[in-house]
Amino acid sequence: MTFLDTILGKPLRSVDERAEHIGPIAGIPIFGLDALSSAAYGPEAALTLLIPLGMAGIAHIVPISAAIIVLLGIVFFSYCQTIDAYPNGGGSYTVASENLGDGAGLLAAAALMIDYILNAAVGISAGVGALVSAFPQMQPHTLALCLAILLILTLINMRGVKDTGIAFLVPTYLFIGSLLIVIAAGTVRVLFAHGHPAPVVAPPRLPPGISLLPLWLLAKVFASGCTAMTGVEAVSNGVQAFGEPRQKNAKRTLSIIIALLMVFLAGIALLCRAYQIGATDPTSPGYESILSQLIGAIFGRGIFYYVAIASILAVLALSANTSYADFPRLTRAIAMRDYLPHVFIIRGRRLLYSHGIFALVGFTAFLLIVFGGVTDRLIPLFAIGAFLAFTLSQAGMVVHWKRQGGAGSRHRMWINGVGAAATGVTTLIVLVAKFTEGAWITAILIPLLILAMSSVKKHYARVDRETAVDRPMNIANLTEPLVVVPLDKWTRISEKALRFALKLSDQVEAVHVDAEDCGDQVCAQWETNVAAPFRATNLPAPKLTLLQSPFRLVLMPLVDHVLLLEANNPHRQIAVLVPELVVKKWWQTLLHNQRAQLLKLLLLVRGNQRIIVINIPWYL
Amino acid sequence: MTFLDTILGKPLRSVDERAEHIGPIAGIPIFGLDALSSAAYGPEAALTLLIPLGMAGIAHIVPISAAIIVLLGIVFFSYCQTIDAYPNGGGSYTVASENLGDGAGLLAAAALMIDYILNAAVGISAGVGALVSAFPQMQPHTLALCLAILLILTLINMRGVKDTGIAFLVPTYLFIGSLLIVIAAGTVRVLFAHGHPAPVVAPPRLPPGISLLPLWLLAKVFASGCTAMTGVEAVSNGVQAFGEPRQKNAKRTLSIIIALLMVFLAGIALLCRAYQIGATDPTSPGYESILSQLIGAIFGRGIFYYVAIASILAVLALSANTSYADFPRLTRAIAMRDYLPHVFIIRGRRLLYSHGIFALVGFTAFLLIVFGGVTDRLIPLFAIGAFLAFTLSQAGMVVHWKRQGGAGSRHRMWINGVGAAATGVTTLIVLVAKFTEGAWITAILIPLLILAMSSVKKHYARVDRETAVDRPMNIANLTEPLVVVPLDKWTRISEKALRFALKLSDQVEAVHVDAEDCGDQVCAQWETNVAAPFRATNLPAPKLTLLQSPFRLVLMPLVDHVLLLEANNPHRQIAVLVPELVVKKWWQTLLHNQRAQLLKLLLLVRGNQRIIVINIPWYL
Repeated sequence: MTFLDTILGKPLRSVDERAEHIGPIAGIPIFGLDALSSAAYGPEAALTLLIPLGMAGIAHIVPISAAIIVLLGIVFFSYCQTIDAYPNGGGSYTVASENLGDGAGLLAAAALMIDYILNAAVGISAGVGALVSAFPQMQPHTLALCLAILLILTLINMRGVKDTGIAFLVPTYLFIGSLLIVIAAGTVRVLFAHGHPAPVVAPPRLPPGISLLPLWLLAKVFASGCTAMTGVEAVSNGVQAFGEPRQKNAKRTLSIIIALLMVFLAGIALLCRAYQIGATDPTSPGYESILSQLIGAIFGRGIFYYVAIASILAVLALSANTSYADFPRLTRAIAMRDYLPHVFIIRGRRLLYSHGIFALVGFTAFLLIVFGGVTDRLIPLFAIGAFLAFTLSQAGMVVHWKRQGGAGSRHRMWINGVGAAATGVTTLIVLVAKFTEGAWITAILIPLLILAMSSVKKHYARVDRETAVDRPMNIANLTEPLVVVPLDKWTRISEKALRFALKLSDQVEAVHVDAEDCGDQVCAQWETNVAAPFRATNLPAPKLTLLQSPFRLVLMPLVDHVLLLEANNPHRQIAVLVPELVVKKWWQTLLHNQRAQLLKLLLLVRGNQRIIVINIPWYL
Repeated sequence: MTFLDTILGKPLRSVDERAEHIGPIAGIPIFGLDALSSAAYGPEAALTLLIPLGMAGIAHIVPISAAIIVLLGIVFFSYCQTIDAYPNGGGSYTVASENLGDGAGLLAAAALMIDYILNAAVGISAGVGALVSAFPQMQPHTLALCLAILLILTLINMRGVKDTGIAFLVPTYLFIGSLLIVIAAGTVRVLFAHGHPAPVVAPPRLPPGISLLPLWLLAKVFASGCTAMTGVEAVSNGVQAFGEPRQKNAKRTLSIIIALLMVFLAGIALLCRAYQIGATDPTSPGYESILSQLIGAIFGRGIFYYVAIASILAVLALSANTSYADFPRLTRAIAMRDYLPHVFIIRGRRLLYSHGIFALVGFTAFLLIVFGGVTDRLIPLFAIGAFLAFTLSQAGMVVHWKRQGGAGSRHRMWINGVGAAATGVTTLIVLVAKFTEGAWITAILIPLLILAMSSVKKHYARVDRETAVDRPMNIANLTEPLVVVPLDKWTRISEKALRFALKLSDQVEAVHVDAEDCGDQVCAQWETNVAAPFRATNLPAPKLTLLQSPFRLVLMPLVDHVLLLEANNPHRQIAVLVPELVVKKWWQTLLHNQRAQLLKLLLLVRGNQRIIVINIPWYL
């Protein structure tokens, strides 16, 4: 276990749990990375759609960013109220299912699961994308780099929440610091230059273009820009992870995150307009991200540029970490209601829901492989899940306040109502605007996931119903089982199996399937080694049965024989003893036991309640 | 089974076996395809090395082909003697191990296995290569085509030897017929034109070049040309498959095959010189195989051309079939001596050694994938295995005749001695000439295979030694086992397990690992449902043990408890009952049993002779 300990940290006792609780300083990297890093791809995604409009298109980014900031403000107030109402973690799933019923809860669950998985995939691929645009020679290894980062993140996260916070503190604050410096310095220069600053490194020149923005394009630009808002629900979902005073710490963390994100979005939009910075085509060789252009224009390509770019790369890649913190909590909450396999409830060595992490990593790897690790192809699938969850959460809160009643509840209902309406409309815009580009995949996946979760619930309910006990145990009729021992040739292994059989029951039958024409030999061995010693005693002797096999099959005649025995003895259990060689080296397993494994499988598939398989291990 | 029957044919009884025996007409396609089809790539491989010498190089093909034909004659007489001496199949493996000892036998076995696998890979890739050079647009799908043909061949072969012969009769005789017609017609035209015929479609013109042939290049050309001889040992290996008179049929088949191959090699060499046909670079766009050039020159590009080319393609691809016929027989013979896993001895539904076919297909697919399905890269690995086997077989025959003594044995010894010397020298030439181009892979693989086979033998010997019985069964001390029933919560499944436990033994212990703090609840259920009914009787009651688990691990405390129990009861066996839910749909297995499977694995790995696992299936 020492190797595992070194990599993953020592196992934690249940009583150590409280020590894992965190404050705002550690909370921002853990729950804010997702939201904050979105600033690096949200505006870029919006501006990319404005490329056809040329230089004239850049101006539109300011009103669109303003709309997104207003939406962000509405969502902020809504989520503060959720934190107040749900001190134990009010994720969209909990809020929706408690207030709007199981159906809405499942919808939120499906939307959130997809959102978290996509967040991990987009974060990693955007980080690698930025790295690759800085070092084009790494382009052919995009997917391999994505998977390597996924592996590193997984190892870090398997150590637990607290270690993770420390590992992510430095890059997060470096990112926040450098972006704030860029925006502050840029704003000062713009003011000094009366709105027309001279760039240090000039961004690529854009064609003049047309200023007319069709409504359809406006909707698409807004929908793309909204990806900047993904991840803001993380805090309300993870209130439980904060130290006391819990809600206050959580709200403080959320306020800081939202305020920073607003500053980033406003700053980037205004500076892009002032410096005339537009997006460049990510598929053509001259591609440069807008943040790279912006920093170059304000500070030139000095040390600061490289530090800032490195922190953006790191934060983008690490933003996937929010998924690691929240996805396992979400699947656990769903599994507690029987909608997902119960393995998601089990906590592992470091107080984490390890299976949730495995599932997240598996699906993220799948997405990365299918989409080749390219962010552009993943973005259209993305915002819809997040906004659907926002909407359901806010709508649930409306019902919550209505049920609670009392002073101030009407006021609070209104705030969440506005939030629900705003995010609901946004969800529709995103769905329609991005439908053909990939949102249809999410639109299909969500009902499929809901169906799957309902099936799981139904299955568990059925198992519980069928296995529930409503009376004390039946202790009558405890007759020994009939025991069948398959016999190939007489060895010490068969001797061990037969001895064990005789310990269990007086009615033991050894069965030899005569596929190789050596039945006489087996009979002779049996006579000498088994029948003879038993004749000398008055113990109940085992009997030997020879089965013919004209088609040289060994297993089917055996299984048929067991089934026949079972049919002829309706009130007895049949125990089949399967000897198995336990070997020390992996390759030796190729030399043995293939028949034993197959026999066990056949007996399980074709057998029934009264047929029991007993493994007799033989250690070399 | 009906679906399987349609694809693979009905299962055959052991008594149907004699009906599978064949005569020369069916024997040529089955055992001769490999040897005959070599005519399509052997001369080509030799001429490709002569490209640098230009037109002057072509003349060298005639003496080199003559040398190969002489070698072929020597090998023919040698193998006729082997057929006489080994009427039950005298493959190189049998002959070498019976006469030269186990070491030489293993060397022959390794060489032959590699040879058969390479033959399958080269046959398929050469066929696809020819197809691709006829239809260049299929080039990107080379590997996929190779694997598709491998699959088709496998399905055909799973039907059994006789059906295979019929399926391959037509293309083989079409190939033989068209090649004979080409050679006959070409020879007539050459004679009429006094040695300088006018080609119907002129082959690509070659530069005049130089006539000097360095010894080193001569060795390489000869080594490449020798690939034309691969496969001639197939008949002697498969004597058993012929109908009576067995040896006569086999020798007749071998004579026809060798005679045809000699005619092909001589004809191709002479006509290439007469029509001035040289190889073209297979990697450049203007590539055309020499057989294609030859047929074009003699008959033009009419219907006959396309029929002949199609038959070459078919035969090349199908030549892999010889491997399907012989590889499973070889692995069976090796497995009979315990040098390979015993699964190779088991005969399947159609009297075939199915596992040999699976192994052949697996390794061939691996080779095709690693080498991208390109013949050129496979050829250098090829001839060495075949010639090593030839040499060992001939050397073994020398010892055989020496041991036998008597009239004529001295004469026969001489024939085989010449064969051994000739093929031995050729082996060395091939090894040295092709070493850097790929023969080193074979040179490394052969000792590795021998090592692996020796390990298998050693392992089986050890198992036999450890499990052999030298005394009648010990029937004393048949005490009931101690039974442990892991208990999660009290359900009908645990009730079933506990009932079965009580049938087996009076000493039953239920164990609950308290990882989720619900120990009290389990104790209460136990009291009501189990302890209470037992108090009313005087049956031996099972007891309940609660295990603490501060790290929330469920399985490790359980396994430790079982091991402790085992240590404290040195003369008892411990049976652990593991309940398992048997579900109907595959996805439901994801919802259950993960812990049961892991527990079984842990008990197997950490357990010992006295710990027995019993599966209690619960069918929903």
